[in-house]
Amino acid sequence: MAGARAQAATGATRGSGHTRVLVAGGSGYAGALAARLIDRHPAFALHAVTSRSHAGRPLSDLYPQHRVDAVLEELDLDRHGDADAAIVAYPHGAAAPVVAQLRERGVRVVDLSADFRLRDRATYEGWYGEHGAPELFGAGVYGLPEVYAREIALADLVANPGCYPTATLLALAPLARSGTVLDVVVDAKSGVSGAGRAPSAKTHFVAVDENVTPYGVGAHRHMPEIDQELAALGAQVTTTFTPHLMPLDQGEMVSCYVTTSEPWSQARADEAYAEWADGKPFVEIVAAPPGVRGVRDTNVCSICVRADERTGKVFVFAVIDNLWKGAASQAVQNLNLMHGLPETTGIEP
Amino acid sequence: MAGARAQAATGATRGSGHTRVLVAGGSGYAGALAARLIDRHPAFALHAVTSRSHAGRPLSDLYPQHRVDAVLEELDLDRHGDADAAIVAYPHGAAAPVVAQLRERGVRVVDLSADFRLRDRATYEGWYGEHGAPELFGAGVYGLPEVYAREIALADLVANPGCYPTATLLALAPLARSGTVLDVVVDAKSGVSGAGRAPSAKTHFVAVDENVTPYGVGAHRHMPEIDQELAALGAQVTTTFTPHLMPLDQGEMVSCYVTTSEPWSQARADEAYAEWADGKPFVEIVAAPPGVRGVRDTNVCSICVRADERTGKVFVFAVIDNLWKGAASQAVQNLNLMHGLPETTGIEP
Amino acid sequence: MAGARAQAATGATRGSGHTRVLVAGGSGYAGALAARLIDRHPAFALHAVTSRSHAGRPLSDLYPQHRVDAVLEELDLDRHGDADAAIVAYPHGAAAPVVAQLRERGVRVVDLSADFRLRDRATYEGWYGEHGAPELFGAGVYGLPEVYAREIALADLVANPGCYPTATLLALAPLARSGTVLDVVVDAKSGVSGAGRAPSAKTHFVAVDENVTPYGVGAHRHMPEIDQELAALGAQVTTTFTPHLMPLDQGEMVSCYVTTSEPWSQARADEAYAEWADGKPFVEIVAAPPGVRGVRDTNVCSICVRADERTGKVFVFAVIDNLWKGAASQAVQNLNLMHGLPETTGIEP
Amino acid sequence: MAGARAQAATGATRGSGHTRVLVAGGSGYAGALAARLIDRHPAFALHAVTSRSHAGRPLSDLYPQHRVDAVLEELDLDRHGDADAAIVAYPHGAAAPVVAQLRERGVRVVDLSADFRLRDRATYEGWYGEHGAPELFGAGVYGLPEVYAREIALADLVANPGCYPTATLLALAPLARSGTVLDVVVDAKSGVSGAGRAPSAKTHFVAVDENVTPYGVGAHRHMPEIDQELAALGAQVTTTFTPHLMPLDQGEMVSCYVTTSEPWSQARADEAYAEWADGKPFVEIVAAPPGVRGVRDTNVCSICVRADERTGKVFVFAVIDNLWKGAASQAVQNLNLMHGLPETTGIEP
Repeated sequence: MAGARAQAATGATRGSGHTRVLVAGGSGYAGALAARLIDRHPAFALHAVTSRSHAGRPLSDLYPQHRVDAVLEELDLDRHGDADAAIVAYPHGAAAPVVAQLRERGVRVVDLSADFRLRDRATYEGWYGEHGAPELFGAGVYGLPEVYAREIALADLVANPGCYPTATLLALAPLARSGTVLDVVVDAKSGVSGAGRAPSAKTHFVAVDENVTPYGVGAHRHMPEIDQELAALGAQVTTTFTPHLMPLDQGEMVSCYVTTSEPWSQARADEAYAEWADGKPFVEIVAAPPGVRGVRDTNVCSICVRADERTGKVFVFAVIDNLWKGAASQAVQNLNLMHGLPETTGIEP
Repeated sequence: MAGARAQAATGATRGSGHTRVLVAGGSGYAGALAARLIDRHPAFALHAVTSRSHAGRPLSDLYPQHRVDAVLEELDLDRHGDADAAIVAYPHGAAAPVVAQLRERGVRVVDLSADFRLRDRATYEGWYGEHGAPELFGAGVYGLPEVYAREIALADLVANPGCYPTATLLALAPLARSGTVLDVVVDAKSGVSGAGRAPSAKTHFVAVDENVTPYGVGAHRHMPEIDQELAALGAQVTTTFTPHLMPLDQGEMVSCYVTTSEPWSQARADEAYAEWADGKPFVEIVAAPPGVRGVRDTNVCSICVRADERTGKVFVFAVIDNLWKGAASQAVQNLNLMHGLPETTGIEP
Repeated sequence: MAGARAQAATGATRGSGHTRVLVAGGSGYAGALAARLIDRHPAFALHAVTSRSHAGRPLSDLYPQHRVDAVLEELDLDRHGDADAAIVAYPHGAAAPVVAQLRERGVRVVDLSADFRLRDRATYEGWYGEHGAPELFGAGVYGLPEVYAREIALADLVANPGCYPTATLLALAPLARSGTVLDVVVDAKSGVSGAGRAPSAKTHFVAVDENVTPYGVGAHRHMPEIDQELAALGAQVTTTFTPHLMPLDQGEMVSCYVTTSEPWSQARADEAYAEWADGKPFVEIVAAPPGVRGVRDTNVCSICVRADERTGKVFVFAVIDNLWKGAASQAVQNLNLMHGLPETTGIEP
Repeated sequence: MAGARAQAATGATRGSGHTRVLVAGGSGYAGALAARLIDRHPAFALHAVTSRSHAGRPLSDLYPQHRVDAVLEELDLDRHGDADAAIVAYPHGAAAPVVAQLRERGVRVVDLSADFRLRDRATYEGWYGEHGAPELFGAGVYGLPEVYAREIALADLVANPGCYPTATLLALAPLARSGTVLDVVVDAKSGVSGAGRAPSAKTHFVAVDENVTPYGVGAHRHMPEIDQELAALGAQVTTTFTPHLMPLDQGEMVSCYVTTSEPWSQARADEAYAEWADGKPFVEIVAAPPGVRGVRDTNVCSICVRADERTGKVFVFAVIDNLWKGAASQAVQNLNLMHGLPETTGIEP
């Protein structure tokens, strides 16, 4: 089969696209999945996949399930800098310098780290420390296509949102835009892949199995990102946000409990969400509270809104796949927009 | 081994207690566990285990893991009515008439259903329909030993709390008593055993595995129970309460986000919780947010309180085993109190 | 989004194929997945999806994750009999009459049941009872493309293999062809989706979670199918076969321990397997024992062979996704062959 | 609650036993569980719990669920050498020198490592390398109480069996004693706790979840131990043994496929197993193949034997909890025998 696949890779699949996309940082879950999505994409070709720690190893050693015929390489701008675009999947802080170098070569970048998401530098430094490419700070467009599609289409540097902000902002956008949001409590639940591929006491099977645990209580890095973007949408709040680790691999749910300045009826909520979702191919408004399983391995965000008469609050439940819409496939969605393609290309649900 | 165990059962274990306890409704998860706990209890003897649907079958057919040498019997008050006490594990509505019959015979009862938990009859009827023993409505003591130990000691009818109310009330008691609670959001997560033993589309492994789903949104039966008891403690609120089904078998977490009328410091929170927990053998105040795994197969409730400066809210995370502290072992704790025993007898953590 | 998807369905996706494929029995896991695969297939169009028990309901009510815009219909040969081909996903026994009716109308059929897999009628009746369409008994081609590709291409009725036989035969084909097999022990492990969608005590989450249980010991219906096809390949054996239920949803492993009439070296094994796999796009020969996770949601079978010097036996470990290669995607692979398409069309790994 | 528990520890629980037991190596799963079982044991007192890597930390930091009030200490023979007995839970190789030192002080030892299990030194060295206390090689009694109870009662050094040998030998003892065993295939399945507490790529939740993988194929260290003890029982075979990693935490199943020199009827099998199990409090012979869940958190081994007419083989399925009967509770069972106590003391099922 190796032969058949190699041929397919050269022929129909990898060579079919004219736009060469580099994946920098392909040994993590998100980077590896990005490599797979690019590898199968009809308009993109996988230029190279790099890894600092695993250079020289076939990507399929680490991720046999992705079936991508590529050997991880040390990043070398002389060889890789002629890519048309790049998805950068480096840790926070380490990403910025690489992004800067790629931008210097004219490579259009979607960056999966937090380095270009925040607009306030003091806030960034408070949560992440010194920035790795200060000259580019704030130069990125926030890559949530359902909000910033036009800006993304014109951008050379897109900051892919964090997984929790993605789900939370999609869940709350129609409410935030209404200007009626007073208080937001977000109780989030995530599968273990969100914690990354590095083995640790917290990701050991025995620690996670039959368990559920809150983490990052009062101090999760996605908080300022959520607040920044909720404010941009129209809700000036300090969000209560607590994620919980769950015994599953992929999938993320945000359960949002929103206090508003005026009562919302179910009809108003339904209308606001339907109108907002209209024309957005990856947003599904559903009547029954969704499970994370329903969006596994897709770029879809399913959302259920409930105006709760009993408490007067509005509840919103949204689910995404943290590795897909929360990372890799959203990066492809952004790349599609940046290259004038239908945003569903290669990531149809 | 059967012989050895039968001997043990007659000798050291089942015959050792002088108080004969009937378990009525032993084919469900909670009833079966109650039978096991009574079977091993040093002061109680298992009088009989009844089941309407599985009479005639050994309990070990349904629950080999419990290793209780008992055959499920049809409930027969002539034979079973001479028990000293009973744990009734019938469904809501069906429990009340059985409880009434047992009380007529002078049997002291801990009832696991909701039939005697609520104090307002209209509220009961609104959520559960007509009551099955109206003459006894309101006659039960609410069986949360950490709050009502004295009343339970004197009671002949104890209404064992629901699993979610148990966790929520233990989590919030010190706050509620302070009189400063303005608003409560409880996001709850439960394992599948909470949904009962009956197979259904919702409890099918494939539906639950790799999934998390909200249920009972805006309409869960534990809501009025939580509000009633929070009010009794000092917090007059309409609680926002949403449970989620999680891919694990036993375990329940409540994540509580509380708005108060005045700011709480961490020091005040620590002091209030430490003071409240003092002398309560099953309440653990812990510094780091607990996982449900840490209380599996115990009667313990672990609680972490955080005064969150950023939002001004107080967060409380509490975990229990829904089948133990949320049902069967709490029933034994109540029986212990009713019989003047140390409340930890037979259920030491 | 509903609008966008409906348009896509009419346009690019569902209408793009000229061959109309009926899925009869679309409410089970395999039938629903088959509907999804046909719906996205570039050369096939989904003609209709039928269900006896759920007619009238949108397929997405039962399987939101498949995102197929189709309403389940009662099977009506007047309306559905003009399909070009059909995948029949009925239970054993019930399938045969439906297959017969479809064949009368000239519809080419891939049948997922066991009704047309066995060649010996007494054997069939011994395991399954009376046959539902005796006139067609034995008329099907055994639909294992890696063995019978030519016959499948010409067939009008293909009997899709059982999931365990699929994995076992692919694992053992090179050994069986060598004529050296004396004894075969197959220890199989399967996820819960293999037990079907009907809720039962055995598929309840709490029964499966943290558990592993053998089932069908000494009496699993896949035994005669395995023996029949191993004999056809060259190994006349009575296979020892025991499946085990595992706490996962999709995935199946067969661990095969083979006694041979002459010693096999690792070199001979490697060569035999490499040669046999050559040109088979869904067979992967791997050096390290594979996990079921590596083939999830694919039509791939990964196989590792080990000539074990210590015991003199040959070990073979093979993994498939029981719903894909073990059922629905193998049906599509068969349909591809029947329609002269590359066998990977629409199910590329 | 801390106060209540501390009191309990000093009073009823930890001080209640007169025999002081040291647990050396208490940071791993088995050592920590051993500490818990000793802590609750009516006849033993927990003398100390040591750890090289975590000295100074409360055991409850690592294992809150065990609720043992003990601080891990550096092993110091001057302070710890006056224990009456010790459970040593060190890695293979590292255990032997510690065991030797404890024996010099007169401490009776149950060793959980493989260092004293094998009787042939060349075999030991071939699998484990040089022995850490050659003068003691072979001095241990093989600690399988169901076979060597008398020898254990008199021993000062007991080698606790490996988890797989425990299950396999209990499964096969009656067959092995018959002298009719010709060939044995053991397909084993284990939960992740068997792989130990150290985080690694293989124990990462995402690697194990929804997966099953064979490991140690053809080269697992438990092989020589199984063969040695099967021979001692009467079966001179080279066992085919392959373990598989399963997505669960505790639990182990061995599925044994045995070829015999003469046919076994079910009646003969039933009689042989019933006779053998008679008087063994932790051996359960069951009619239906057991699941691992049925023995979770117990010292029980459940065994089902099937004389399979179709193949002429005898199948035996046995389940244990790998951390209990496969390690910690079996060590306590051995200690009970060594101290003249009923073997069920403190570990009643």
